[in-house]
Amino acid sequence: MKKHIVVIAGDGIGQEVTAVGKQVLDAIATKYNHEFTYDTALIGHAAIEETGNPLPEETITKSKASDAILFGAVGHPKYDNDPSAKVRPEQGLLGIRKALGLYANLRPIKLFDELLSASSIKPEILRGADILFFRELTGDVYFGERGRTDDNNTAYDTMIYSRYEVERITVKAFEAAMTRRKKLCSVDKANVLESSRLWREVVQEIAPRYPEVTVEHQFVDAAAMLLIKDPCRFDVVVTGNLFGDILTDEASQIAGSMGMLASASVGDTTGLYEPIHGSAHDITGKGVANPLASVLSVALMLDISFGMKEEAEAVVQAVDAVLKAGFRTGDIAELSTPRDMILGTQAMGEQVLKALL
Amino acid sequence: MKKHIVVIAGDGIGQEVTAVGKQVLDAIATKYNHEFTYDTALIGHAAIEETGNPLPEETITKSKASDAILFGAVGHPKYDNDPSAKVRPEQGLLGIRKALGLYANLRPIKLFDELLSASSIKPEILRGADILFFRELTGDVYFGERGRTDDNNTAYDTMIYSRYEVERITVKAFEAAMTRRKKLCSVDKANVLESSRLWREVVQEIAPRYPEVTVEHQFVDAAAMLLIKDPCRFDVVVTGNLFGDILTDEASQIAGSMGMLASASVGDTTGLYEPIHGSAHDITGKGVANPLASVLSVALMLDISFGMKEEAEAVVQAVDAVLKAGFRTGDIAELSTPRDMILGTQAMGEQVLKALL
Ligand SMILES: CC(C)[C@H](C(=O)O)[C@@H](O)C(=O)O
Ligand SMILES: CC(C)[C@H](C(=O)O)[C@@H](O)C(=O)O
Repeated sequence: MKKHIVVIAGDGIGQEVTAVGKQVLDAIATKYNHEFTYDTALIGHAAIEETGNPLPEETITKSKASDAILFGAVGHPKYDNDPSAKVRPEQGLLGIRKALGLYANLRPIKLFDELLSASSIKPEILRGADILFFRELTGDVYFGERGRTDDNNTAYDTMIYSRYEVERITVKAFEAAMTRRKKLCSVDKANVLESSRLWREVVQEIAPRYPEVTVEHQFVDAAAMLLIKDPCRFDVVVTGNLFGDILTDEASQIAGSMGMLASASVGDTTGLYEPIHGSAHDITGKGVANPLASVLSVALMLDISFGMKEEAEAVVQAVDAVLKAGFRTGDIAELSTPRDMILGTQAMGEQVLKALL
Repeated sequence: MKKHIVVIAGDGIGQEVTAVGKQVLDAIATKYNHEFTYDTALIGHAAIEETGNPLPEETITKSKASDAILFGAVGHPKYDNDPSAKVRPEQGLLGIRKALGLYANLRPIKLFDELLSASSIKPEILRGADILFFRELTGDVYFGERGRTDDNNTAYDTMIYSRYEVERITVKAFEAAMTRRKKLCSVDKANVLESSRLWREVVQEIAPRYPEVTVEHQFVDAAAMLLIKDPCRFDVVVTGNLFGDILTDEASQIAGSMGMLASASVGDTTGLYEPIHGSAHDITGKGVANPLASVLSVALMLDISFGMKEEAEAVVQAVDAVLKAGFRTGDIAELSTPRDMILGTQAMGEQVLKALL
């Protein structure tokens, strides 16, 4: 197959980890006789520096014309510590999600056996955990009206959902549950928020269409607790943009490290694949970032956007093999890991490539 | 000293656990020669059933006239599954927080040594964890304007903070940090939300007044991850109402169980003391609820509202002694706990009273 991929590396370690992701794509093309062509595009701080705009028009055009997007990360400490900055790297990421209608963010949380003891959570609690998050990605307080009033002394954001927005993500989550353990947990704060009450109403309305799926509703505070107390009770979780942001980062501890987690953002057009970790400026340029989240993002791309199940599985197997062989990046190393098995970004990438051959 | 306490037991296990809390207050009065008088008041589902109103005027009047409030819990599954209910138990709790101006919710997260292995998190990660949360309690999306538009097809809530609201909770958090390890972490989502940018601005403005305190800012998603990965890095945490709701429930896993966590809601008037757990209708009436969060709420009341440091310490020591003696409620029991050491609510209360003598 021929596929055209836009690589949007973005900021910080985004550059380093997507470089490995791209090598994995190349290896898959060679091995399975596909033809992958590439383009690059700017976003975030990198785009602001070059064009003044965190999301140049060209990035959207190139993305729309591609078959899939391999994304790195956005963000820069400079803006974080300056609450009054008008232009921010994150606007690039939020903007591209919106421009491409990427309303469903899939975040699979699954622990590789080899990492069972790398987590801060007890192995006996983690064993068997396998959660698929559906985080809504183009609504909620991320996109509602916001501003200042009262002479700049008051600030507000609007948490907002329409029935249609909740419906389409809920349907996707139910469809996924049907292919898995047939359990859906919807997370909201319906005991306080009106947008959550609409959310719950819609999930309740759709539920009867999937009589085989067991549905439960949890308040976000309880969900945040249960994820750590008993991760195995969850199968598919569907939730809004803000709650999904918080819960999936938290859930990264179930997978041993944030450096292991990939995500797929899909909607009506081109899918975007990115690690859930951020730009991590504290380790940028040191060559120590874990590239496996980007590699696993490639696996999601092959599976979801290209329908290449076998190729996707090969990538996951390669990651598994590398971990089984004992290789680790710093974030997933343990006290017992021999020093010469702790690899940098590029060396870890090479092990994955070797395992892929 | 003479003190007048209003007991607002509320719903579900609220009744069972505040009964134990009150017994502990009585024991303290006897032992230390104080005179505690009591009144009761209605709230939540219990109040709706009796008066149609989740927060009867009388409850506010009695509360204002008291020296402290011992609170249970509110909530009922009936409303949770009916998103269109107009009157809800939670309005009682939100209403009393607002009516009494209880803007600072203190949630200390500290593990009793004996429970080190009861948590789902590894003991070596937990050892030494000691966090004091300051959750803002009368602003944010909890109290902003909300409603439906677009023929009931769209629902919104307003996340809103004024400079003044952020200032007063931030000052309280800095003051507390000065009496502890002098570290403050402020949690927001300033890379997306305008209300968070105001939050961060205010914290940055106040920080220079406390040059000895090391301040860090974390995004809420990162904070949710770090709490589990490395709880010992936190000392005092200050955050908004919604993020505080989520993070403190999550952090209950650091303390072994939600059943162990107490909170103090303070402001300009009478303080309110409550477990952070909810009404837990699944175990209501079974006599198995863990009363220790209510007992520890009493310790906070003695300390913060009455200035009775020694008495407060005696209550904490009693809880410690009971745990050291091996007694557990179901939620904090382990596989290795002998069956006859697993106690119900009342029996656990009796052990605490014995330890207090
Ligand atoms: C960078 C930030 C705007 C973004 C988000 O909050 O969505 C990130 O945390 C994520 O989860 O992709
Ligand atoms: C019952 C509910 C409204 C409440 C809240 O969200 O504040 C509870 O979760 C809490 O944390 O006290």
